[in-house]
Amino acid sequence: MTEAACATRLFVEDDLAAGRSVGLDHARAHFLRSVLRLGRGAAVALFNGRDGEWRARIEGLGKGWASLEVEAPLRPQDATPDIWLLFAPIKRARIDFLAEKATELGVARLLPVTTRHTAVSRVNCERLAANAREAAEQCERLSVPEVAEPRRLFDLLADWPCERRLLVCAEAGAARPLAEVLGEAADGPRGPWALLTGPEGGFAESELDALRKLPFVTTVGLGPRVLRSDTAALAALACWQAVLGDGRDGPPRD
Amino acid sequence: MTEAACATRLFVEDDLAAGRSVGLDHARAHFLRSVLRLGRGAAVALFNGRDGEWRARIEGLGKGWASLEVEAPLRPQDATPDIWLLFAPIKRARIDFLAEKATELGVARLLPVTTRHTAVSRVNCERLAANAREAAEQCERLSVPEVAEPRRLFDLLADWPCERRLLVCAEAGAARPLAEVLGEAADGPRGPWALLTGPEGGFAESELDALRKLPFVTTVGLGPRVLRSDTAALAALACWQAVLGDGRDGPPRD
Repeated sequence: MTEAACATRLFVEDDLAAGRSVGLDHARAHFLRSVLRLGRGAAVALFNGRDGEWRARIEGLGKGWASLEVEAPLRPQDATPDIWLLFAPIKRARIDFLAEKATELGVARLLPVTTRHTAVSRVNCERLAANAREAAEQCERLSVPEVAEPRRLFDLLADWPCERRLLVCAEAGAARPLAEVLGEAADGPRGPWALLTGPEGGFAESELDALRKLPFVTTVGLGPRVLRSDTAALAALACWQAVLGDGRDGPPRD
Repeated sequence: MTEAACATRLFVEDDLAAGRSVGLDHARAHFLRSVLRLGRGAAVALFNGRDGEWRARIEGLGKGWASLEVEAPLRPQDATPDIWLLFAPIKRARIDFLAEKATELGVARLLPVTTRHTAVSRVNCERLAANAREAAEQCERLSVPEVAEPRRLFDLLADWPCERRLLVCAEAGAARPLAEVLGEAADGPRGPWALLTGPEGGFAESELDALRKLPFVTTVGLGPRVLRSDTAALAALACWQAVLGDGRDGPPRD
């Protein structure tokens, strides 16, 4: 790991400003004390998704508690690109991985949706959120993606904000090449976007037909191979960031 | 899984033509008989990376053996885009995942390379190749990516075919946005390409300096977040396929 990435970064809910004191929950206090073996005076970076990144020092810590004092700003808050990912829940290892990778790739919101062929019924949203938070701490994001409660796809789309364009990654039927759609959009005004990927079973034909009728939907293809759900989501998100997101910003290190 | 994706697909080394008989090794015969519980007469799809995809039937199978008769062609051989992935070896779960995803994303060749900060010393190339083969069977590719023996990065680059452009994914320093470089290349003549991603520790500054001096290298950035090695490789590969690869081909299903 590079030195910067090694520095401990923690997401907290508290407001961050010089002189403020921040307490940590049992799990994270234990992490600092027993895993990282940090002691009083050690520096930790904090962010909350609102106030940027701040340097803080451990004022005190013991069994299951830690208090930090916020010292100085490290980075101002940035704007996360406004891209949502709607995805049909998949099996545990893959959904953990999806949350991690989508967070690294700068997704703003993760929305589990159930579809006709969705095999996985339960979604552990707390686990999803924890994976997203850890990935955000790790990849030096200044925000953590929101995790929405699972909904039926067409219930969610029934009250969809129609200015938000939805790219549906289709493994079948008529679909425009993703790069073509993104390239056209790059010449137009910026706006909010979302991506939708189906379950391992793919979308039902009737679902794709219904999706194609929606005014805010564009059906896109990701090429000739049958991608797993997680692969499709990450490929589409990577391409969106490269063309319409913050892919044009410089690398994280000087 | 969709019906087509459910159909058993196997990669074999044998030449494929109508009437030929193909034998399977112990592991795959066991897979057909005891895992999939297939019997005589069951249809299986075969591909070898040269002759396209063929329908075959199980002529006979027993404990540890199976013979198939090749019947009729299903799909003609296609051309895999000529894109290599050079990557610094990473930990086991992530390298398995990288091999699977890179195969789904149509990589032609996987080349493990060691760099200054590479922490993982040994690479199990057989395991890499097995993961790539299984992913190719699963994603309905007609070829399996080659897996090269691990080499030191600059040994490999010492005899690099200089007509093959190399995109180096840099997490630091001067780098052009990936989408910009790909967009320019899309207007020019097609040629062979390769992607290089560093280890979790990133490239050493001296390595990036040396890479930037090579005539076939373009250093690209993937945005402001610190991506894990596997995320960076998949993001770059997905973008390359979308713009310069077969991302413009229609989806796999009708």
